[in-house]
Order: sequence, then C-alpha cells, then structure tokens
Amino acid sequence: MKLWEKNVRRVIPYTPGEQPSAANVIKLNTNENPYPPAPGVTAAKDAMDAKRLRLYPDPTAKVLVDALAHYYDVGADQVFVGVGSDDVLSVAFLTFFNSEKPVLFPDITYSFYPVWAQVYRIPYETCPLDENFRINPEDYYRENGGIVFPNPNAPTACYESLDKIEDILDHNRDVVVIVDEAYIDFGGKSALELIKKYDNLLVVQTFSKSRSMAGIRIGYAMGCPELIKAMNDVKYSINSYTMNMPSLIMGVEAVKDETYFSSCTQKIIATRQRAKERLSELGFEFPDSMANFIFARHPKYHARELFEALRSANIFVRYFNQPRIDEYMRITIGTDDQMDALFDFLKNYMDVNKKKL
Amino acid sequence: MKLWEKNVRRVIPYTPGEQPSAANVIKLNTNENPYPPAPGVTAAKDAMDAKRLRLYPDPTAKVLVDALAHYYDVGADQVFVGVGSDDVLSVAFLTFFNSEKPVLFPDITYSFYPVWAQVYRIPYETCPLDENFRINPEDYYRENGGIVFPNPNAPTACYESLDKIEDILDHNRDVVVIVDEAYIDFGGKSALELIKKYDNLLVVQTFSKSRSMAGIRIGYAMGCPELIKAMNDVKYSINSYTMNMPSLIMGVEAVKDETYFSSCTQKIIATRQRAKERLSELGFEFPDSMANFIFARHPKYHARELFEALRSANIFVRYFNQPRIDEYMRITIGTDDQMDALFDFLKNYMDVNKKKL
Repeated sequence: MKLWEKNVRRVIPYTPGEQPSAANVIKLNTNENPYPPAPGVTAAKDAMDAKRLRLYPDPTAKVLVDALAHYYDVGADQVFVGVGSDDVLSVAFLTFFNSEKPVLFPDITYSFYPVWAQVYRIPYETCPLDENFRINPEDYYRENGGIVFPNPNAPTACYESLDKIEDILDHNRDVVVIVDEAYIDFGGKSALELIKKYDNLLVVQTFSKSRSMAGIRIGYAMGCPELIKAMNDVKYSINSYTMNMPSLIMGVEAVKDETYFSSCTQKIIATRQRAKERLSELGFEFPDSMANFIFARHPKYHARELFEALRSANIFVRYFNQPRIDEYMRITIGTDDQMDALFDFLKNYMDVNKKKL
Repeated sequence: MKLWEKNVRRVIPYTPGEQPSAANVIKLNTNENPYPPAPGVTAAKDAMDAKRLRLYPDPTAKVLVDALAHYYDVGADQVFVGVGSDDVLSVAFLTFFNSEKPVLFPDITYSFYPVWAQVYRIPYETCPLDENFRINPEDYYRENGGIVFPNPNAPTACYESLDKIEDILDHNRDVVVIVDEAYIDFGGKSALELIKKYDNLLVVQTFSKSRSMAGIRIGYAMGCPELIKAMNDVKYSINSYTMNMPSLIMGVEAVKDETYFSSCTQKIIATRQRAKERLSELGFEFPDSMANFIFARHPKYHARELFEALRSANIFVRYFNQPRIDEYMRITIGTDDQMDALFDFLKNYMDVNKKKL
C-alpha cells in the first residue's frame, strides 16, 4: 500500500446497468423510456446558441425550477434540482441523515441507498419486505434517523397506497422521510399532495423515465421551503453550478408538453398490460407492476439462465445476484415491437429447452 | 426549530459570483472566456440527435476521458472527469482527505476549499501567503492530512514555479497533494509532467476558462491510476451518471481544436499585457498575473468604491470583503473592447473624483 492510501475513503461503489454500445441491442435493462423526448426538446436544442456556453449557467437553475413549480403548483422555494435523481438523493442523504440512529429502508430496494449510507458514514438498518415484496408500515414505527423508500419500489415495481405512506409519516414526525418516486408517473399517485401536511416529507422525481431524458441528467425534489433551503445550502457547499446550460434549456421543454408526456406514459402503461398478459401465458410470475418494468420469475427456468440466453440474443434485461431476488429478472417496458421480440425469444427458448417442475 | 431539523447538516455555503441577466453588461466578474467555444462545438451541437437523450449517457464518459488522455499523452486510467472542476475537487476532498491531521491550504485562495472542508467535516489549517501573496513551501513541511492550492492562485493570479511545487511534493510523499490548475493555460507551466514522479500528485483542470465552456460544466483530474481509481470509486458511490450526453458530445470537440484553443489563449494573454500597462498608467498596483484576471488595488481609491461605481455603469468585476484582500478587486480579462470600456470608465471616474493620498 502506498503511504497516501491510508487516508483514502474506501467504498464499494454502486454498479450501474450495462450501457451496451452495439446498435442492434434491444435494451430493456435500465428502465429507459422507449420513446424520444418531447418534440420541443429537439427544437430547443436546435435553437440553442452554443456560443453562450462560454458563460456560466445560472447556478439557481431558475428556469427549470420555475417550470417544475408551475407544473406541480408549488412554490419555487419548494423545488430542488440536481444532476439526476441520484444527485438529488445523494444531497438529501448528506443533508438530512446526520443522526446516530439508523436510517431505515427496505431490504429489497434501490441498491444505491446502502452505497450512499456507506460513503457518507450514515448508520442504517433494513426492514424486510413481506413475502409479497410489500412494505409493512409497522417496521418503521421504531426510533430512527430518517426513512427512505421508492414508490413504486425498485426493482419489484410494487406500488404502496398513500394511506400506507401517511401511516409511516404519522409515526415519524421528527425525522425526514424521503419518498423516491422515479416511477410514479406510470399509474401511481404521488405523495406530493402530502407535503403541505408533512413538513418532513421530501418527494424525489426524475426526468430519466417518464420524461424520456435519462441522457440529460435531471432529477428534482419537492418539499417544504425549509427542507429545500437545507438541501440548497449543502448543494452550494459542494458544487455551485451543477446544471449545465443544455440541461436547463432542453429540460424546460420536457416539462411544458403535457400532451406528449401523457401520450407516452399511456402507451407504456398499455404495453405493460400486454406484457403482463403475455408473461403470464408463458408461465412467469410477478408482483403487479405500477412502474415501467416488470419483476418476473419463472418456476421452471432460473432467471440467470434466461438473462444469459436473452443477452446472447442481444436482448438486455437486468439480473440482480442478491438474496431473495436472485430468481427474478427485471424487464423494462419497451415498445410493443421490442416486447414482442422478447416474448418470441422466450417462447422459442422454452419450447426448445423444455423443463419439468 | 422543527424536530427533524436536529439531524440537518448545517453549512455556510460558497457564494458564486453574480450572473446578471441584463444583456448590456460587461461581465468581468467570474473569469469566463470572452471568446466562444471552438467552432466544432457548435457543429457537434447541431449534429446531436436529441432523440438519443432518452438513453442514459455512458457512465464512464469514455469519449471525453479518451480525448483528454490523448491530448495530454497520459493513460485513460489517469483521467477523471466531473461536472466542472468544483465537482472534481469536491470528490477529491471526500476521497483523499480522511486524516485526522489538518489539510493545509493558503489563507488567501479559492474560497471553496474551506467550504468543502466544512461540509465533509475535514480538519484544516491555512498557511499565510507572504506579503507579496506568494506561497512559502516551508509552511507545508509540517505534518498534515493533505495539501491543496491553485496555481496560478485565485484570486491573486500569482504563479508559482514547478521548483516550488516539487519542493512541497518532496516534503509530502505520504499525503495527496492537489494542484488546482484552473488558470494554468494562460502562460503557466502545468505540474502534469510531475505525475510520473509523484504518485501522490493530483492535477485538476477545467473547461470553464481556457476552453470557453463554463456553461457545459466539465472539469478533470490527472494523476496515477491508483489516485484516479479511488476517485472513481467514490464518484460511483455518489452519482453514476454525472456527465450528460450534451457535455460528452460537445466537450470532446473543445479538446480537439488545438489551433483555436491556442489562438484564444494567446489573444487573452495579449490583452492581459495591455491591461497591465493601462492599469499601471492609471495608478493601480497588482501582483504579476499569469491567469485570465488581474487582482488590483489603487492607493487612492478603495476597491469597494470602484467596484460599486463600475457596477452602476454595468461593468461587473469581483470584490471580496475578506481580510488582507479587501482593498483589491479581481478583474477578468475580456476582449480589448471590453477592457477599453473599463479603463475609460476608471480614468473618467478618477478624473471626476480626484483624491490625494
């Protein structure tokens, strides 16, 4: 070991899903949207004057904050923006989870939570989901240093009702509760309406899924002005200018076009319904999905086997080699054509490789 | 105080320079480049397919890392990229400064250093610059948890020779030494050539000044592969996808065009020479500048008075109300026309408001 290495922060980093560079891949592995961003985004890109890149962007990201505040009918002082919801969640962990008591989150959840806890030295404990991958609110009644969970959950796609979220909030008024709603626009009801009632509730969303802009890196949080100010103070203590000019100019357009947004999410919901039916016919089992992906297992075929077979056919899905979920694969909802290619491959594979229980 | 606020990380954030929105401002306050990015940047913007924004960007930022590695003739495993050099420095502080001994930096320096130390709970001590704002290497001979300084320094514009930097490195082989070279392309010699000899040296640079791309948010660090890997591990523990697609696509072009880059930096160096002459004629005093700004005081006129008078004429410079430097203003080198407007205003102001010593 080199001498300077004794002061290095040792971490086990998060592993993002593969970003294959081949053009002929059917990419159903990172929950991207199969449809392009709103037409206004392309128009804004074309109109953007690249010469202006010589100047710093607005550190307050005012145009984007204002567009989101207007869309969600909240104050501009109730919106925080960051470089994807990962940046937003990372700042939230650093800002709000400074207790010596453990932060609580489900045992099966977004695998970045324990990584942020680790890098920022935040104590945490996980609360096991029940056998149907559902949250039990009573697990969150005990003393803690904060709570975070996705709704719908990742990678299970299970949606919890606002009643259940209020139950958790009612038993946790003295810590910050973060509801990570990356997938909320695919049929769930946002907890946003609860921020008036609970000043300790932070709702986090993203442009990466429902707004088809994973490549632009925009996430945002909404909550009471005190929560947002605390996050901005920390953000301005890390990096003043996080949102680059293209993200501000193009991001605003993705918020404005409600018609396009609604048509894309409806198409994905319809394809998800078809996918549920087809996967059932093929013998798959899965918790009901309210997200843009389905978390499925097959009683006869191990998920890793199917994952690898699909991969060799250039169809990428996601497999997590982790306790409790190693028999599942996570399949992003693509276009109808992409999903048909997946179903055809699976049907053919199972015909050729017949197995008995 | 609300109950949840007891767990909030309390910080005093960095204050970025003003970004006035009025169009008729002569903006010499945040060290931006007065010239637009390389023509290839605009061409890349035009050619960019906004439809591809639905996909995540490459988390490894390979095209940009490779372009920088090629330009600087180092390995791709020796380059780290981030969202501006502030992101890069922030990750470096978090990664390398985990000692209980204090990190050392000059008392007059980039004002973000104490802010990062504060937010990440890093102990630090400052080493006073001498009366000419120069670094004394002997101040850095004592035990410490790491060292960071800009070269040229901000906001003084003073450049230290590589001999002095090697002196500091020779006395500090067991901690990481960061040389923050945001302004190195305006005449100084980079410490990059020393990374082969010193595996604990990290050199940080940015696209925001010499490459005219403050609005795109790209910074980078170069060092031995172990240093870069440690930073990437921490980066992947905070946010996997930091560099958005536009920054990758356009950033690459700014690295490729050596002719344009050289012509812009030479123009700024020539204008700086004119500015030194004119400011001297007007009675200003300043340490010799090797950056794209001049840090000047006037024996008869207080900097705050001049700063405010200039501001009322829509000429923005930067004033720091801090010990030892509150008689100085920092003037970014703009175009010759912009500088002439500044000199004309100052000459006229001093003619009208004559003062004796």
